[in-house]
Amino acid sequence: MSARGTRRKAGELVYQADLVKKEVLEKLQDLGRRVVEDLRRKRWPSIELPLRTTKNIVYDEKLRQYVLGPKRSVRTLSNIRHVRPFAQLVWLAKFAKQLLETGKTSTLRDTYYVALGEQIDFEDQSESDDIIMELESILGHPREDFNIFPEERASIYGDLVIEYTVPGFRGRRIDLSSHPDGYAIGPALTTAEFVRCGAEQVFVIEKGAVFSRFVEEGADRKFKALLIHTAGQSPRNCRKLIRRLREELNLPVYVFTDADPYGVHIASVLIHGSALSAHIKQINVPDAVWAGVYATDITRYKLPTMRFTEMDEKRLSELLVDPRYQTDPWRREVKYFEKLKRKAELEAFSKYGLEFIVKDFLPERLAELQKR
Amino acid sequence: MSARGTRRKAGELVYQADLVKKEVLEKLQDLGRRVVEDLRRKRWPSIELPLRTTKNIVYDEKLRQYVLGPKRSVRTLSNIRHVRPFAQLVWLAKFAKQLLETGKTSTLRDTYYVALGEQIDFEDQSESDDIIMELESILGHPREDFNIFPEERASIYGDLVIEYTVPGFRGRRIDLSSHPDGYAIGPALTTAEFVRCGAEQVFVIEKGAVFSRFVEEGADRKFKALLIHTAGQSPRNCRKLIRRLREELNLPVYVFTDADPYGVHIASVLIHGSALSAHIKQINVPDAVWAGVYATDITRYKLPTMRFTEMDEKRLSELLVDPRYQTDPWRREVKYFEKLKRKAELEAFSKYGLEFIVKDFLPERLAELQKR
Repeated sequence: MSARGTRRKAGELVYQADLVKKEVLEKLQDLGRRVVEDLRRKRWPSIELPLRTTKNIVYDEKLRQYVLGPKRSVRTLSNIRHVRPFAQLVWLAKFAKQLLETGKTSTLRDTYYVALGEQIDFEDQSESDDIIMELESILGHPREDFNIFPEERASIYGDLVIEYTVPGFRGRRIDLSSHPDGYAIGPALTTAEFVRCGAEQVFVIEKGAVFSRFVEEGADRKFKALLIHTAGQSPRNCRKLIRRLREELNLPVYVFTDADPYGVHIASVLIHGSALSAHIKQINVPDAVWAGVYATDITRYKLPTMRFTEMDEKRLSELLVDPRYQTDPWRREVKYFEKLKRKAELEAFSKYGLEFIVKDFLPERLAELQKR
Repeated sequence: MSARGTRRKAGELVYQADLVKKEVLEKLQDLGRRVVEDLRRKRWPSIELPLRTTKNIVYDEKLRQYVLGPKRSVRTLSNIRHVRPFAQLVWLAKFAKQLLETGKTSTLRDTYYVALGEQIDFEDQSESDDIIMELESILGHPREDFNIFPEERASIYGDLVIEYTVPGFRGRRIDLSSHPDGYAIGPALTTAEFVRCGAEQVFVIEKGAVFSRFVEEGADRKFKALLIHTAGQSPRNCRKLIRRLREELNLPVYVFTDADPYGVHIASVLIHGSALSAHIKQINVPDAVWAGVYATDITRYKLPTMRFTEMDEKRLSELLVDPRYQTDPWRREVKYFEKLKRKAELEAFSKYGLEFIVKDFLPERLAELQKR
């Protein structure tokens, strides 16, 4: 299958990542232009911001994710209390523009330190993180689109050839089935184009040990699957990559997590999005399917269990009232956890030998899900 | 530079990893043979174990690491209280032999679950972890040598071509400079042979963001360096890989950590080894050099700092009495932390712009260390 992301314009190759960057740059320039225009006309410069409070978070049926509602606030230099966050935001917009123009990347933390060095007053990193989320909400783009990347690294392995778009590697290709321990998903992989894909589905896996198990048992070949290791909650750039695999290559996505309230949450955030990222569209994967380990699998497969911790109890009570968990399989499984009060790990299938999870559990679960 | 690990025997290629496995297999068979022999001769089977208590941990000046002293204990089936751990140990030896014979890998956790499935009674995972450490101490090999790998993944990037020895990939090669986000260091990379190396030194980095920064600023090319991201405390298979880069390719190793007590500890464990792994030789890198960020760098570079947490205080008080920190630069820096009671991150150099750490700090520090 050839990539849909790459477009050719009058014979010239145009990378999708470049188009995104161009769009963000234009929005940043537009933001700056409006401030300058206000100043020229002797008006107090102001910036409109989508309101990010919980009251303004609604579930969008069409997009199948949580999004911000229509409420907006205005930040204006005419209000003395707005001066500080206004200046912080304008500085960040300038920094984002620099990143895009130089092709450099940053992190939340690095951005905070660069700000300190340029005498921008942030109380602590959480204050600069918040301003970064504001810029995301104004631009309607995740921070990765203006080159601010997470420190965490998910990884990927399987039959997919990518082409890099980052400086120094532009146009070079690699085959993601060449290194069985996995390729880290950093800035270069996130912005790469998909060139050729022999896989027919994607398995997203919470645990590194189980990712290794899938590789070792040849799950990638047996099931023609790309394997992705999220290392717990998937970083946003990893979610975005999975969404692109779904949209550009039309691959079904199955998510495997531990059978505990946190595992349920990890799967749900990938599928439904999180309230914390309601201000950015399209970094969730609504078509992805949670494939277990379910609470009911604990009984069905007689898995070795552990007692709930206080944290598990707390998380479960949150899930019980959250609107995202009111339909099956979520509701059924959350209720079953409430009854069971015990949890099991993905590795628990090793009770039946190291091969069991790929040889027995995986085909059973996929057959069930495809029947639905 | 070509690999020293690979040996040719009558024209045939012999992998170092295979030699290690052969050695461990022979030791396992020997262990089993002695038990069977005892039974045949109607003697109570017994196994000698190095004592792993703190009283039996001594610093070996020649090996330059902590090792177990000469004290040993005997586990014998004639003692009713020994029956349970004896059976657990024999089962584990059998499981390790299976792993080596089938070429499969496991983790501490998977091993626990496999044991449960085979009706081996372990109270919880910590009990099986302890038996795994006993087997390590008997064999004198880290568990990676009998295919039990950590879940954590460090990663590597740079001018090094490796050749895999794991099933399915045996004999295939990859160039570790092809993917700028880094290659995960799992079972396949750990057991690979070094084929060709253009790098002249190794930079070990605690933080993912700083690893990305080094790649982006071209530190690998400017300094002819392999870059390794440990993601905090380096997993043991990563330490082993660094040791091999030092020994087989004769590369100097520099370690970069945050300027806080935990960062000091991370560097020290890599260099001196840890008490917890005193029963295994040669997974530390005595020649590696801690290159900062030092406590004194905080003052020297006027780095933005954070207050010590309670955990930092506690760690610092441990470092102050630990014999590993009684010589410079350790002593000097630990004392300075005591005075300063503040810490700084590697990313703090971004105060001077994103380029500073590679463009200014790195050459300054390397020049100082090479002068010594």
